[in-house]
Amino acid sequence: MTSIEYMREAIALSENGMKKGCGGPFGAIIVKNEQVIGRGENQVTSCNDPTAHAEIVAIRAACQQINSFSLKGAVIYSSCEPCPMCLAALYWARIDKIYYAANRDDAAKIKFDDSWIYKEVSKPIFERELPMEELLRSEAQLVFDEWLMKQDKIHY
Amino acid sequence: MTSIEYMREAIALSENGMKKGCGGPFGAIIVKNEQVIGRGENQVTSCNDPTAHAEIVAIRAACQQINSFSLKGAVIYSSCEPCPMCLAALYWARIDKIYYAANRDDAAKIKFDDSWIYKEVSKPIFERELPMEELLRSEAQLVFDEWLMKQDKIHY
Repeated sequence: MTSIEYMREAIALSENGMKKGCGGPFGAIIVKNEQVIGRGENQVTSCNDPTAHAEIVAIRAACQQINSFSLKGAVIYSSCEPCPMCLAALYWARIDKIYYAANRDDAAKIKFDDSWIYKEVSKPIFERELPMEELLRSEAQLVFDEWLMKQDKIHY
Repeated sequence: MTSIEYMREAIALSENGMKKGCGGPFGAIIVKNEQVIGRGENQVTSCNDPTAHAEIVAIRAACQQINSFSLKGAVIYSSCEPCPMCLAALYWARIDKIYYAANRDDAAKIKFDDSWIYKEVSKPIFERELPMEELLRSEAQLVFDEWLMKQDKIHY
């Protein structure tokens, strides 16, 4: 299949998910070695899970499929530019490339907050609308020191 | 319980999760109306899920507990400053406030990529290390138009 055909499948998922009442109009598929290894549609409202964006659902499905926390060597086709949550998740998953169709401004026009959250995440902590407060830093650092010393750790 | 005591519980989760081999040294709890409604420790490597950071695990648990995709009125105590994935997830979850202990620089010192991913997410698309390419935007926009017209949609 071509990139165009994979993207059409992601867009079809976005439409079908919306029509079935899963959540917002977003779909994504993950492809590795010319095989679709994960699919996702937005399931926020149907599953009561604000993290269940199409890309996150697809990442989880793909990782279960290949029994790995790494998607190195895979690419994602998403019907919309990933929000900061999904973009960062794709970095953590070590995906090779992101194809997207609609963008954050298109999402803003149908009242999704992607663009606003991009601005917030990029701000220094004390300029954000969501309040943040540091507490007990030194106690958490002690656990980080233990991690450094841990002999059998699996890094990611 | 006080904020200090809740944070100690989050830090204890970070240490216990690490010692059990769940994943990295991170823990979080979510509190609403003086009740702990969700707990999470990092489970990336044990569950093969790169999205299973402590905060995401805690958000999912809390939302299942209260049967809602909104955590409005709740606060989170995280043993580390949330990475961009978790921060954006907390925005989507509409949480009221974030308490954190260690920060992104502390995480970088023990070889976690939070700080690097913050920089990447804040960049314009074409300056990022992870390649992104737009495809079929107009076809995805048609589905967004359908969403606008949908009568029974649940927004979030």
